[in-house]
Amino acid sequence: MNNEWFREKSFHQTHSVGFKLKSILHEEQSEFQNIKVLDTYSVGKLLLLDDKCMVSQADEFVYHEVVSHIPYMCKPIVKNVLIIGGGDCGVVREFARHVDIHSIDLVEIDERVVEVSKKYFPECTQAMDDKRVSLYTQDGIEFIKKKKNHYDIIVIDSTDPEDFALGLFTKQFYKHVHEALVEDGIMINQTENPFLDEFGIKNIYSNMRNTFPIVKSYSAPMLIYPGVFWTFGFSSKKYRPTNIISSKISYMKKLSKDLKWYNTDWHQGAFLLSNLHKRAIDQW
Amino acid sequence: MNNEWFREKSFHQTHSVGFKLKSILHEEQSEFQNIKVLDTYSVGKLLLLDDKCMVSQADEFVYHEVVSHIPYMCKPIVKNVLIIGGGDCGVVREFARHVDIHSIDLVEIDERVVEVSKKYFPECTQAMDDKRVSLYTQDGIEFIKKKKNHYDIIVIDSTDPEDFALGLFTKQFYKHVHEALVEDGIMINQTENPFLDEFGIKNIYSNMRNTFPIVKSYSAPMLIYPGVFWTFGFSSKKYRPTNIISSKISYMKKLSKDLKWYNTDWHQGAFLLSNLHKRAIDQW
Repeated sequence: MNNEWFREKSFHQTHSVGFKLKSILHEEQSEFQNIKVLDTYSVGKLLLLDDKCMVSQADEFVYHEVVSHIPYMCKPIVKNVLIIGGGDCGVVREFARHVDIHSIDLVEIDERVVEVSKKYFPECTQAMDDKRVSLYTQDGIEFIKKKKNHYDIIVIDSTDPEDFALGLFTKQFYKHVHEALVEDGIMINQTENPFLDEFGIKNIYSNMRNTFPIVKSYSAPMLIYPGVFWTFGFSSKKYRPTNIISSKISYMKKLSKDLKWYNTDWHQGAFLLSNLHKRAIDQW
Repeated sequence: MNNEWFREKSFHQTHSVGFKLKSILHEEQSEFQNIKVLDTYSVGKLLLLDDKCMVSQADEFVYHEVVSHIPYMCKPIVKNVLIIGGGDCGVVREFARHVDIHSIDLVEIDERVVEVSKKYFPECTQAMDDKRVSLYTQDGIEFIKKKKNHYDIIVIDSTDPEDFALGLFTKQFYKHVHEALVEDGIMINQTENPFLDEFGIKNIYSNMRNTFPIVKSYSAPMLIYPGVFWTFGFSSKKYRPTNIISSKISYMKKLSKDLKWYNTDWHQGAFLLSNLHKRAIDQW
């Protein structure tokens, strides 16, 4: 970062995306990481954790809508939801749209991410006052070990598979997620970019398949992430991602007028994969 | 560009994508533009025209496969094909896979782009020796005015709507394309990124709808283009993009094993648009 540009380097420091700066709004070192908020010309406000792009005003809705409404629309009953990571609270906002959900637990290791988001991204944190929402400032890996047969949906809203997020991509962790889910539960996680595959996508999917009987993948563009073309995992005990619950369709048709990305047509199409995507996840 | 990195700035010079350089393989000033070939770590060889990314080894197949096989699969008879622009010849390669096509005309204003591509991107230009292929070193806008009721498919493989490519996005040009097409012909063109919409996507689609009765949009990721999430237009006199010709399906199922991106499932899904994409093209 200089006074004019912030650039995030990826793919072994050989690829970069850059944002021209209006100003640096915030900077601090928390117990866990460096936290910055920038104001940029192309994507508005931009949250960085250890100088990696996490959330921007220009595209936050994509990630938040696609990890929440896809599993919600595939499972008849959704009462209890868990989000691990995701301290910007945007995923909470999306689940909170559904009044049939009883509880939304957010487990974020770094409470400063939540506080900074409340100040600079109030459009993301707006549902944190909802009485169904509980914030746990803990390590998600430890939190989940104590939960059994409880959650309908668990979203792993993690950073890349490195440093303290590495444990969120292991067979052992997926086994604990499986145990924390009800008998027809669904796990959603972010699974990186297949063009610039620094972290081994095949291995992530192999670990998921080791635990879940149904493992599918879909994609959505995240403008601020390296390579933009982003993949997500759908790991399920019972339901398939393209069997949308028919009784929810007319409800979602109305709701999606207020959404910026998600609709049920797009949902169906997102699971119709290109050859590159199929090969990247060994589903060929 | 410095000795270590090439960066393309977009969206009013506020957003950038950068590539760490191995070396600069070629540089020249042609009659029309500056032409460079770089060798990079993240995307391999990379062709620049006036310092804008055009083709890379890492993702050229996406663009070339999605502008060719989509219209081919929607029209029962495809005999004569025209490509305007596209001097890298990758679109020619994809159409040449289909033995039922009689002629493939490529109209590229700058023959130096073709020559440089032959040297540095032989995987793209490999079909230029095919006896069905004709290269016309001319202005596509003038070329098309003389053609009437001849082409089954016309692909506008253009740069951004500025400078000498601006004329490839006008109502007048689309009218000439319409006249050059047979009575059930299809036009395909690149229509920019809706997140970083510098050039007015709504206006491009409005111009297309002014001439064609069926105008649809689809997307595919182009890793080297600004914002990656790329949209394409499907403008048609008769056929709809999701009505794949059933007699071609088993043929394509075999062929697509050799393709890196396209398959008929992905084709169907690519037209199931997100809310953002629908709103960007005024198809809401």
